[in-house]
Amino acid sequence: MGASLTVLGFNSAIPTVRSYPTAQLLEMSGRTFLIDCGEGTQVQLRRAKAKFSKINHIFISHLHGDHCFGLPGLIASFRLLGREKPLYVYGPKGIREMLETIFRLTETRKEFEIIYKELSIEVSEKIYEDKNMEVFTIPLDHRIYCNGYLFREKPKPRRLNMVEISKYPEIEICDYEHLKRGKDFVLKDDYPLKNSTLTFDPSPGISYAFCSDTRFTTSIIPIIKQVDLLYHESTFLHDLKEMADFTGHTTAKEAAILAKEANVGKLVLGHFSNRYSDLNVFLEEARPIFPNTYLPRALEPILIEFHRPD
Amino acid sequence: MGASLTVLGFNSAIPTVRSYPTAQLLEMSGRTFLIDCGEGTQVQLRRAKAKFSKINHIFISHLHGDHCFGLPGLIASFRLLGREKPLYVYGPKGIREMLETIFRLTETRKEFEIIYKELSIEVSEKIYEDKNMEVFTIPLDHRIYCNGYLFREKPKPRRLNMVEISKYPEIEICDYEHLKRGKDFVLKDDYPLKNSTLTFDPSPGISYAFCSDTRFTTSIIPIIKQVDLLYHESTFLHDLKEMADFTGHTTAKEAAILAKEANVGKLVLGHFSNRYSDLNVFLEEARPIFPNTYLPRALEPILIEFHRPD
Repeated sequence: MGASLTVLGFNSAIPTVRSYPTAQLLEMSGRTFLIDCGEGTQVQLRRAKAKFSKINHIFISHLHGDHCFGLPGLIASFRLLGREKPLYVYGPKGIREMLETIFRLTETRKEFEIIYKELSIEVSEKIYEDKNMEVFTIPLDHRIYCNGYLFREKPKPRRLNMVEISKYPEIEICDYEHLKRGKDFVLKDDYPLKNSTLTFDPSPGISYAFCSDTRFTTSIIPIIKQVDLLYHESTFLHDLKEMADFTGHTTAKEAAILAKEANVGKLVLGHFSNRYSDLNVFLEEARPIFPNTYLPRALEPILIEFHRPD
Repeated sequence: MGASLTVLGFNSAIPTVRSYPTAQLLEMSGRTFLIDCGEGTQVQLRRAKAKFSKINHIFISHLHGDHCFGLPGLIASFRLLGREKPLYVYGPKGIREMLETIFRLTETRKEFEIIYKELSIEVSEKIYEDKNMEVFTIPLDHRIYCNGYLFREKPKPRRLNMVEISKYPEIEICDYEHLKRGKDFVLKDDYPLKNSTLTFDPSPGISYAFCSDTRFTTSIIPIIKQVDLLYHESTFLHDLKEMADFTGHTTAKEAAILAKEANVGKLVLGHFSNRYSDLNVFLEEARPIFPNTYLPRALEPILIEFHRPD
């Protein structure tokens, strides 16, 4: 099953007529995840023709307005659209108080449950798991408690080589699960058939790492190592490195260094400061270090493809 | 000094790609007032080329999301733009708790003061006054505590008729203020000169009444009587009168009846339910009762003109 990322907004701080604050829609293993939710996200979701009812898990990186001020309105719209299914909200400690205060004062009655997973620890932790995939936090270094998120498909079962298998009538259907898990097959005369002759390598599980907002920090490299797609903020160019450090942000050069060191498949930049009108300057700074760097295009899905690490 | 109303959004409940929730910008007596602030208002203000620094007074009708969820983001942007001047926020009791909870949890430090005027009483009260104008609440009947707002220029001074005045050297410049206030002038021989011969009638003060959201209620008629412009919600057509009552809204027919009974100059409808794709049906229902009824056009300023009541 393929995966794709639709960037809904990639602006920093102040929304403009041309661009929206941070929000992304990730489709992976048949699930739809919303990552961050700046003001106006629900309208961008409509533009992306996303089905609101498919969004059951929302991951908020941090409680700055340009990453979460669209959440009350989106949840109020869920209610108006008759939602009944529970909604899972992952985000920093305080997100529950903020949302529940708003819902109490605006008398937003919800016919569905919101299940909060509030985050407060400074090391990577697994916060979501289903049959096919897992989500881990990526502790970041911003002015306020902030996490990126790593979405990773689980290793898939090996694929059966039916041509080979059919040569051995001793192998029955009930043995297939063992073969998919990599076990050899032992014939009655104790002659072992190697698993690698009976199965093919599995389709690789793909992975996506979302990192916004943060200072340059190499501590994330072990977590994002060899991901197929990395989104990393690059609010500034490197000539404003001091400002980046002061405000808790990264430069395009630094994002490229992280992508290179972590040996990722592809890098998408974002969270650009409004001071830059031509965003190609970010590519010009990053590509000499990490050539497979791209700018996001709002509402254009990016296919997440398996990347065979060097 | 003229007055104009720019409707930034007039959608009800769920924002769509084509229309924004309620927000209006009123320019009157040289001041700029923001009325309601649904999600996305700050982007609409940019589209309207409004100067953020001129907005010092924000009036929120009620704490439903489609009337206030744009406020945290707008105020956060004020801060990012370096605002220092105080901001006055008028709205239902609870608005302070909502905004201050959000600002605390999002660590939004403000270098300017927010002065809250929280409203809770059920009769019309004057909540703003300066040299030229006043603002009064209009108690409405919604599912949650809700006020409309009446903006009214104060009666202006009479205008001097300099041709007549110059015939009497006894009238000195220091007498002009008395004349502007309507006093007669008494010559030395006790011969009174009537004020009406020395001055012209003053330019009329203009008035605007904003009424959203509310059930049909004739109790507002004495407050909105003879206003030059009335904005009144009409979420539904009259065939859905029962739903209008149930949800706390008004029909186009009822809005027209109120405009007629209050003898206003012009009626602008709004807050239309998303179920109506062609909004002309609202005009077709309202105009037979009150011909001077119009639909708003987002971002197109409406000149508020003095209306000489019948």
